[in-house]
Amino acid sequence: MMISRGYTRLASSMFTMVSPRFFSTAVTRGVLSNDMVKAPAVGLGVRCRSSMAAIGGGDKEQEKKQAVGGGGCSVKDDKGIVSYWGLDPTKVCKEDGSPWKWTCFRPWDTYQADLSINLKKHHAPVTVLDKMAYWTVKSLRWPTDLFFQVYFLLYFVLRTYACNMITILYMFYVLVQRRYGCRAMMLETVAAVPGMVGGMLLHCKSLRRFEHSGGWIKALLEEAENERMHLMTFMEVSDPRWYERALVFAVQGVFFNAYFLGYIISPKFAHRVVGYLEEEAIHSYTEFLKELDNGNIENVPAPPIAIDYWRLPPNSTLRDVVLAVRADEAHHRDVNHFASDIHYQGRQLKEAPAPLGYH
Amino acid sequence: MMISRGYTRLASSMFTMVSPRFFSTAVTRGVLSNDMVKAPAVGLGVRCRSSMAAIGGGDKEQEKKQAVGGGGCSVKDDKGIVSYWGLDPTKVCKEDGSPWKWTCFRPWDTYQADLSINLKKHHAPVTVLDKMAYWTVKSLRWPTDLFFQVYFLLYFVLRTYACNMITILYMFYVLVQRRYGCRAMMLETVAAVPGMVGGMLLHCKSLRRFEHSGGWIKALLEEAENERMHLMTFMEVSDPRWYERALVFAVQGVFFNAYFLGYIISPKFAHRVVGYLEEEAIHSYTEFLKELDNGNIENVPAPPIAIDYWRLPPNSTLRDVVLAVRADEAHHRDVNHFASDIHYQGRQLKEAPAPLGYH
Repeated sequence: MMISRGYTRLASSMFTMVSPRFFSTAVTRGVLSNDMVKAPAVGLGVRCRSSMAAIGGGDKEQEKKQAVGGGGCSVKDDKGIVSYWGLDPTKVCKEDGSPWKWTCFRPWDTYQADLSINLKKHHAPVTVLDKMAYWTVKSLRWPTDLFFQVYFLLYFVLRTYACNMITILYMFYVLVQRRYGCRAMMLETVAAVPGMVGGMLLHCKSLRRFEHSGGWIKALLEEAENERMHLMTFMEVSDPRWYERALVFAVQGVFFNAYFLGYIISPKFAHRVVGYLEEEAIHSYTEFLKELDNGNIENVPAPPIAIDYWRLPPNSTLRDVVLAVRADEAHHRDVNHFASDIHYQGRQLKEAPAPLGYH
Repeated sequence: MMISRGYTRLASSMFTMVSPRFFSTAVTRGVLSNDMVKAPAVGLGVRCRSSMAAIGGGDKEQEKKQAVGGGGCSVKDDKGIVSYWGLDPTKVCKEDGSPWKWTCFRPWDTYQADLSINLKKHHAPVTVLDKMAYWTVKSLRWPTDLFFQVYFLLYFVLRTYACNMITILYMFYVLVQRRYGCRAMMLETVAAVPGMVGGMLLHCKSLRRFEHSGGWIKALLEEAENERMHLMTFMEVSDPRWYERALVFAVQGVFFNAYFLGYIISPKFAHRVVGYLEEEAIHSYTEFLKELDNGNIENVPAPPIAIDYWRLPPNSTLRDVVLAVRADEAHHRDVNHFASDIHYQGRQLKEAPAPLGYH
């Protein structure tokens, strides 16, 4: 108690000393009164529990806060010293009146995927830069292929000496089944990076140059959001193993920085790369669908998060989810090739209105 | 013509060679047919005009594209080779049916600022880390103050020898008038950085760790969007000069990287800094309002972008805009102190639902 009072006395004396130079009188008074009121009640936790100190609510307040846990409700006392711990989260409901249970997206972010989009559409790489982009993506595919093939080969061979034929066949089935699931997941952890990097760089440019972005910041951030939603969905149906997490960790570190530099040097090239990356994604999801149709991958019911996000019927399956995801990738392919083409026309992105809400 | 055909022949032969290894037959056929159809029509522009090559649309198509300019309408030919140059932008209208003219925000991003928020609320810095955050912000204020004071002093002294008393008084009036306008603008160019950096880092963390963010990615990106909208608004009423642009350029470069590192090392500290930064912003806007009320700054009509964004009545003035902006800053102050407090509670942000749409 002595210690805490000592600290707050020190604090208040500091404020009094400096107030004429740095504070408006109102603020100073606020600070001092806060400290004075708080001093007796703060207790020994003062150094390590800032929010409590800020509330100055003593034990009763502290109990309240413990009860709040996630910080769902706001805590105020009569002295007008307010706790930031506990801003009310906005109450959102579904159409049927039931409470909205997702925090990573809101009802107005949901949409019905346009499955009619042309999946075969391909930007033929003609210029040297396009060819570079194209082969960059192709070469990016090798490491993951290699990673999976080597792992599965080893696993398979080891099993051959350890188990009988039935176990081997079962293992093979399991591995094939896992393969596209976790490949899709890992694809999304990479695919969600470019949108964020591009959006961030355009955001900073817009601030620096005092100019509008033509909606492209929003469009690219929407893309990143959407890709992250894909990941959140696949997480429900496939559980990443330690070596997959390790790979994602490494790949993100490299890819983020590479794309960051790439976008600064040539947005034209960067957007083209993403365009081709999305074409690869479409191809992978088509393979995924084939495996589902062959029965190599079990067509489990769609996770609730996917049903809410893509407004799918309640009895939807994994197949419907993959169809929606593939359609999304096709839309991102269009947006990124479009962005690259704008640069090819010698224009800036802001000159062409961004395809906002193009899902 | 010969050159272009040469290039596409090379391209198609490359594709044929690699197709068995990297392409599904469908994709290969797509690529080859695209190239074959395109070759005669592309013309010499093929190397520098990627999008045209992709369209394969010859002169007629090219004329169309030139006419389109901003890429408003989509261009297709009968061969199913589609131009990315020209995705239709989504058509959005206001309540009164008139077309929506803003690309940097959409009708569903608009809101009415909650002016009833407590502007005096202050998080008393009690812990050592809080005090560090507090004094970091205070010291950040010095350089800008210095910058403006030195500039205005020099300008004033020089004028004294150059002009008569009336001009001096007029100049002083002009400088005082400009001061808060451009200070507000420059404040926003800095204030829009933390939200973007925090959002981006949480986004990458969410991808890396295969975990939900509790809506905090969205909340922080919303904050960045909102701050950028402030800038877009002040740009309408104040025109930055070359030395202001230079300062913003330098400050952003330093601040972005400093905050990036700071957030990685201690999000607790980073959010607290922003909390105090917002408290400073509220103080600055209160000064701005005083100047408006004293008549030192002309209370010009509110720019249309502000009227649409904050749903202000048509006859609103700059004063109403500044009130709305100040309220926004107060909300960001709460969100960031809240975020810091969550960390102080030894919890992660994702454990407490983010105050989404808290304006």
